[in-house]
Amino acid sequence: MPQSYGGSNTRLRFARVEGFSFSTDVQVRFAETDAQGIAHHAAFLVWCEVARVAWLDMYAGGYKAIRERGIEALTTDVALHYHQAAHFHDRLTVWTRCAEVRGARFRYAYRIERDGELVAEGHTGHATVDAVSRRPIRVPAWFAEAVATAQATG
Amino acid sequence: MPQSYGGSNTRLRFARVEGFSFSTDVQVRFAETDAQGIAHHAAFLVWCEVARVAWLDMYAGGYKAIRERGIEALTTDVALHYHQAAHFHDRLTVWTRCAEVRGARFRYAYRIERDGELVAEGHTGHATVDAVSRRPIRVPAWFAEAVATAQATG
Amino acid sequence: MPQSYGGSNTRLRFARVEGFSFSTDVQVRFAETDAQGIAHHAAFLVWCEVARVAWLDMYAGGYKAIRERGIEALTTDVALHYHQAAHFHDRLTVWTRCAEVRGARFRYAYRIERDGELVAEGHTGHATVDAVSRRPIRVPAWFAEAVATAQATG
Amino acid sequence: MPQSYGGSNTRLRFARVEGFSFSTDVQVRFAETDAQGIAHHAAFLVWCEVARVAWLDMYAGGYKAIRERGIEALTTDVALHYHQAAHFHDRLTVWTRCAEVRGARFRYAYRIERDGELVAEGHTGHATVDAVSRRPIRVPAWFAEAVATAQATG
Repeated sequence: MPQSYGGSNTRLRFARVEGFSFSTDVQVRFAETDAQGIAHHAAFLVWCEVARVAWLDMYAGGYKAIRERGIEALTTDVALHYHQAAHFHDRLTVWTRCAEVRGARFRYAYRIERDGELVAEGHTGHATVDAVSRRPIRVPAWFAEAVATAQATG
Repeated sequence: MPQSYGGSNTRLRFARVEGFSFSTDVQVRFAETDAQGIAHHAAFLVWCEVARVAWLDMYAGGYKAIRERGIEALTTDVALHYHQAAHFHDRLTVWTRCAEVRGARFRYAYRIERDGELVAEGHTGHATVDAVSRRPIRVPAWFAEAVATAQATG
Repeated sequence: MPQSYGGSNTRLRFARVEGFSFSTDVQVRFAETDAQGIAHHAAFLVWCEVARVAWLDMYAGGYKAIRERGIEALTTDVALHYHQAAHFHDRLTVWTRCAEVRGARFRYAYRIERDGELVAEGHTGHATVDAVSRRPIRVPAWFAEAVATAQATG
Repeated sequence: MPQSYGGSNTRLRFARVEGFSFSTDVQVRFAETDAQGIAHHAAFLVWCEVARVAWLDMYAGGYKAIRERGIEALTTDVALHYHQAAHFHDRLTVWTRCAEVRGARFRYAYRIERDGELVAEGHTGHATVDAVSRRPIRVPAWFAEAVATAQATG
């Protein structure tokens, strides 16, 4: 839980935390640790993907369903801030939401917590492309509707 | 080598490309691909780390030397933009430079190319901590000097 | 559940399946797939480790407890047979048991199933060493007792 | 190059070492280490794959060429023995050979060394299948010839 942020972005932050209504738990695997004795920073990207897939299962019929309709969702950008180290066997909660859908692009935001404490936060950008031609195609209407449903639930 | 970019950001881009004087090659491993038939986006973070380690070998006596002096360099943030997919067996050039050193923090910038074409770019932030206490400690002077040397070489 | 194996090794197989009383579920992550569209064969080793850690949680106070007592368990050998491909999002059951404890060594056996169908099977060998000196030390008595308890439960 | 092994298995070992005429070097990545401070045991499977791919580049026109002919090579089994730990930044030599081709199956053997010292050894089994139907197909004649060429070179 964020305690105090102070300054002008307090409310904004609070809004962002409130903005999450969906989370998935992951437990740090031994294979995900490195010689610093902590989870390797690349593992966090995999956990965000696990959370995104779980979100899609919940709200959009699953990622497999999307792929079976001939759509691929490419990752176009990632940004993560690490606030605390994660250790082997830690159980982490990955809060996830689809933050924006526009044209052929959509974005997810993440907040990774351990016992309510902020461990990492970030976002990923994605583009929908035709699975065969790899050309950009608009995010399908049913996906945008799934996002609206998820937000209404939150 | 970047050939021509055109448009209004030519100079900016060119300046940034000029900023790099060190690169390492990686070849996309089959284990790094995913079911989209392309390199998984988390693999790029590992390649940036490989490049960072090679940079440290070249300019700062190697990462092992740093760790042996009781210093750990934690990763505090990452940001990557993916411009092109990378495929199995692609040979990629990871241009790397230490972009900033300040207090207990330093930053690296990356530009990943395939045959001179931009594939991805990004940066990572790091903090030096005492290996035992995990408390922040100033980036050592010899490291800052290594960065200066690297920049002079570039 | 194995239905019918036929042939001379039916009983043996049945006995081996019966031998398992503990299992953990994993779901194939997208990052674990490769350009063949299936889970990469190295991911299975990670799942066996996940299952081993869960087994230790259940029967031996957890892997962290072992490490905190100054013991490291090294992996000395692995062998896996892949019978079916695993795909993205598949939910797999990893049956696990500690198959043998002798001196400074112990072995685990695994049977990975999807909806009762055999996907892979194998075993891993481990050696207990002192965390500091890295010298072999006998598997502690309490660990051997944990194995006996697990077998009695099965 | 292995120097001296001594003891009763000298000849056997020597014969096996002699069997290898092809090797690839890998350097242990930081991301490949784990909280034991050594390379994670699953990383060795990835290095064997890297070596196999390099072998195919040398003797069989490359793995991409095989895939482009509509053939997939699945991994059917793996077995590895770990003799020494590998550490971050270690440069390892992965000796590789295609040990057997029969029907729709072929096998590779590996010997991983560091400065001539045995670190790990093992083998992998593979089956050729039609990329579309996933049905087993005979290992193509040109692949068997490539193996014969490789052995003659050795």
